[in-house]
Amino acid sequence: MPRILRINCRTKEYAFEEVGPYVNLGGRALTSRIINKEVPANCHPLSAENKLVIATGLLGGSTAANSGRVSVGTKSPLTGGIKESNSGGLFAHKMPKMDLLAIVLEDKPAQEAPFSTLFITDEKVEFRNADDIVGMDNYPAHDKLLAEYGDKLVAAMIGPAGETLRKTATIQFTDPYKRPARSAGRGGTGAVLGSKKIKAIVLDPAVNNKVAAVEADTFKAARTTWVNILKEHPVTSQGLPGFGTAVLVNVINEAGALPTKNFRYGQCDHAADISGEKMAETIEARKGKTTEGCHVGCVIQCSQQYNDKNGDYLTSGFEYETIWAFGANAMIKDLDDIATMDRICDDKGMDTIEIGNTVAVAMDGGIIPWGDGKAAIELLKKVGTDDPMGMIIGNGVVAAGDAFGVDRLPVVKSQSMPAYDPRAVKGVGVTYATTAMGADHTAGYGVTANVLGVGGTVDGHKKEGNVELSKNLQVATAAIDSMGFCLFVAFAVLDSENGVQTMADLVQSYTGNAFSVDDLVALGANAMKDEQDFNERAGFSKVDDRLPRFMEIEPLPPHDVTWDFDENEVQGAKA
Amino acid sequence: MPRILRINCRTKEYAFEEVGPYVNLGGRALTSRIINKEVPANCHPLSAENKLVIATGLLGGSTAANSGRVSVGTKSPLTGGIKESNSGGLFAHKMPKMDLLAIVLEDKPAQEAPFSTLFITDEKVEFRNADDIVGMDNYPAHDKLLAEYGDKLVAAMIGPAGETLRKTATIQFTDPYKRPARSAGRGGTGAVLGSKKIKAIVLDPAVNNKVAAVEADTFKAARTTWVNILKEHPVTSQGLPGFGTAVLVNVINEAGALPTKNFRYGQCDHAADISGEKMAETIEARKGKTTEGCHVGCVIQCSQQYNDKNGDYLTSGFEYETIWAFGANAMIKDLDDIATMDRICDDKGMDTIEIGNTVAVAMDGGIIPWGDGKAAIELLKKVGTDDPMGMIIGNGVVAAGDAFGVDRLPVVKSQSMPAYDPRAVKGVGVTYATTAMGADHTAGYGVTANVLGVGGTVDGHKKEGNVELSKNLQVATAAIDSMGFCLFVAFAVLDSENGVQTMADLVQSYTGNAFSVDDLVALGANAMKDEQDFNERAGFSKVDDRLPRFMEIEPLPPHDVTWDFDENEVQGAKA
Repeated sequence: MPRILRINCRTKEYAFEEVGPYVNLGGRALTSRIINKEVPANCHPLSAENKLVIATGLLGGSTAANSGRVSVGTKSPLTGGIKESNSGGLFAHKMPKMDLLAIVLEDKPAQEAPFSTLFITDEKVEFRNADDIVGMDNYPAHDKLLAEYGDKLVAAMIGPAGETLRKTATIQFTDPYKRPARSAGRGGTGAVLGSKKIKAIVLDPAVNNKVAAVEADTFKAARTTWVNILKEHPVTSQGLPGFGTAVLVNVINEAGALPTKNFRYGQCDHAADISGEKMAETIEARKGKTTEGCHVGCVIQCSQQYNDKNGDYLTSGFEYETIWAFGANAMIKDLDDIATMDRICDDKGMDTIEIGNTVAVAMDGGIIPWGDGKAAIELLKKVGTDDPMGMIIGNGVVAAGDAFGVDRLPVVKSQSMPAYDPRAVKGVGVTYATTAMGADHTAGYGVTANVLGVGGTVDGHKKEGNVELSKNLQVATAAIDSMGFCLFVAFAVLDSENGVQTMADLVQSYTGNAFSVDDLVALGANAMKDEQDFNERAGFSKVDDRLPRFMEIEPLPPHDVTWDFDENEVQGAKA
Repeated sequence: MPRILRINCRTKEYAFEEVGPYVNLGGRALTSRIINKEVPANCHPLSAENKLVIATGLLGGSTAANSGRVSVGTKSPLTGGIKESNSGGLFAHKMPKMDLLAIVLEDKPAQEAPFSTLFITDEKVEFRNADDIVGMDNYPAHDKLLAEYGDKLVAAMIGPAGETLRKTATIQFTDPYKRPARSAGRGGTGAVLGSKKIKAIVLDPAVNNKVAAVEADTFKAARTTWVNILKEHPVTSQGLPGFGTAVLVNVINEAGALPTKNFRYGQCDHAADISGEKMAETIEARKGKTTEGCHVGCVIQCSQQYNDKNGDYLTSGFEYETIWAFGANAMIKDLDDIATMDRICDDKGMDTIEIGNTVAVAMDGGIIPWGDGKAAIELLKKVGTDDPMGMIIGNGVVAAGDAFGVDRLPVVKSQSMPAYDPRAVKGVGVTYATTAMGADHTAGYGVTANVLGVGGTVDGHKKEGNVELSKNLQVATAAIDSMGFCLFVAFAVLDSENGVQTMADLVQSYTGNAFSVDDLVALGANAMKDEQDFNERAGFSKVDDRLPRFMEIEPLPPHDVTWDFDENEVQGAKA
């Protein structure tokens, strides 16, 4: 019987509640509903009235392939709007084994209160003293938790960035390899956890209640169909496992959409130095691993283990967006410098996209030279300390722009853009513009039809078809995020005749509740409506659905395309 | 024949233009019209597309008492909305003597370009090398300009805060005593001038064209009526000249509306130490001056000269809001420390209200101890340097709150509140909420009827009547700001039967154009409409007309009043 666990971080009271009004919701649909219904839209994100929700998807705990993502929802310190950021790792798969659908963290103690580690069993919650890990980076702190709780540790935690309430702060989750390498990356969710004085959340390793599909035989059949769909598509079966997401460096560069030097150019001269091919070659030479999964049940395996020059583990979950942000956008050529920054971001608990863009802004402001990886590394190390430069860098692009006097800021709703220039990939541009999340490629990945030829073809340089493309992808993605699926299943689903039906079949047979394709679409659309409603009440207007002015007036080489949608033209992409 | 001077700060081209579509506008009505019509609402405030407009009022250059205020308009770096900030000093009175109604600064050079001093005559503009004053504080830099241009210097300039593009940066104007002590204080206008690489603007001392009223006899009669109105009212003839605006410390404290310790309390235990009475006593003991005017033709004389312990000049234009911000809100008891900070703010070119609130936020965040004036002084000195702490402090309350993790931020539209707690003075609270300027007491000073019994009486603790009060004051104020009047004339006008008619008579007889009381009201209302239109197109919605959440849920002692208007209830205060 799934339950919602509510924890008051000030009084330390807690309650395991029935799901009540939140029945038939999961993942993003659940976090966004709770935030929209329960959090005053105009509260400060770091104030006592904000809440942090951690939820498993509708398929959480099941054996359906790639269904183990965990959703984190809150009012974002970065955007001031609603936020759902999801992550791999073991947390979402574990929650149902404790009969937990969601954990809702409420209220906060005085700022001078000590940090706690929340130890959660299936019947109680303990606020344990966290003095031994406070101030520590995530990897060493996670090692301490491993030593204390054993190899079956399943934890969520914040690093120094979250402790110091930085807007780039992530929540890091234990991955299948005993590392805190999976991130709910965007929007500063870690700062909200920090404001509630929670350093880590540990799920009791001793509790592992049995989880089974209600309609076991139907579920088993659907599961097989599902795995075959994923294994038959070239992107999910070859591209992603072979080179990780970094396979995109050359692809997006070739398309003239790889934002370079703080979004000045669409191609980067040193793309080959930071490509997925180069990464795979480097990993193999150093005896790392080119393929790993980020959560139980993953059949795509797009993660990896990247070793340093000595062959020692350096980082994993080393994504295209990270490599792009530091590599192309901040002009850093050395893949080892970039990998080091990825590790620092995981250790401090910072969003690599926001931080990479921030480094580019710092370079634009003359704080450090363009392309200087070593100087960038030193900047990153300041975050989480009492150095005011770290306060600035740790708060992301807008804070850095304001501090350094840079007016070229590639942000929407104060969140910086990922690795696709919207001028040349307008399908994802419409998503950046209209999603309640701020600039976010994962909210409706129009790169599919604009560049990859997946799910049809829509010209990314022209307006035609891109609002509809973005809308359809946004709805589908919100559903995917609510079921607990990894977004990458979309590649296969978009090109599969029965992909969507199979997802619906999985949910229906797992939960025992009727769940049609229409229900799936409604799940996604309703999540978006909750998010849009919250943002409207938080003060966003349709004008906030514009991209930065410089993209309207400055053509992007080499294709010399500008952003020519106004706010009215993109409203159709909303639910 | 009044003209508009347009200067391109990148190409250094300029043109003296007829006023064309901007006929019959002046001051704020003119700056807001130009910004609304000519600046893309979604541009970055520090980008080339933003403009900075300096305008004299409809009565600029005339001998009408207290009509010499200068308006500065731009898209605000602090709020992201439209901004008009006006100042005393000699600039507005001088412009008509050069046949100038407005100066419009457009475009900007590369950020690495050197700063210039603009030397403006009645027929040409020179970009002069400013190397000798770049990086200098306003007082010493102004002394250098005095040495170069002589005692008839009339200048506008920025200090290190403006040069470094800080959001609190002011533009300082030459006052009648050869000091750069008058500020267009709010909203970061100085950063816009800095972005255009202009350190100072000097109006040619040699040009002094004759300015005369078109209907000379009528004007002369109206002028006499006008002076008598000002001289008959106790506030403008006794309260303000006697103690300066600081007369309000005890008055507002007594009313329980003096925001104390970052807006936690409505009364301050050490109010007597920072009162106008104490200030006057100190000034007299040190042989300063208790009364001075800020511009030619002032008959109110609310300014002063505040000397240090050695009897040497320290500061002037030492306002109630400044004393409150550092004294009550940041809990600093020593009036000399506060005066020193006032001077530092004038020297660096920073808004004392925003900076005082920022110091309180820094104290709330544990950066320096509460009430520590010496530590606060050291913080202020960092602004304009390359110290990242100075970047944070110089960017105001929101930047400081974000950097220091403080969620108690007394701001509306990102501009911090002045010296009147809106929970206890709801008339001014409605103004904070609804004016396009962000929290700004000067946009509609409801303290009049709420506390001072001027212009009637409206209970400041209750909702009733306060929306109407604010609306009427906002329209009147916008008209006052457009004619070039000092806001303080409103005290007398509100209690005078023929005050408004006299103002209209002055404009009609001075300009020779028909100008009725209805025209006066329309002038104000249309200025507000321009401002509201711009802000809406810049992304503001009516939700932005709420006050900070903490004021909705936290009663203010001693009267235990909260802010209980929602955004819909205050819309009636808009034009």
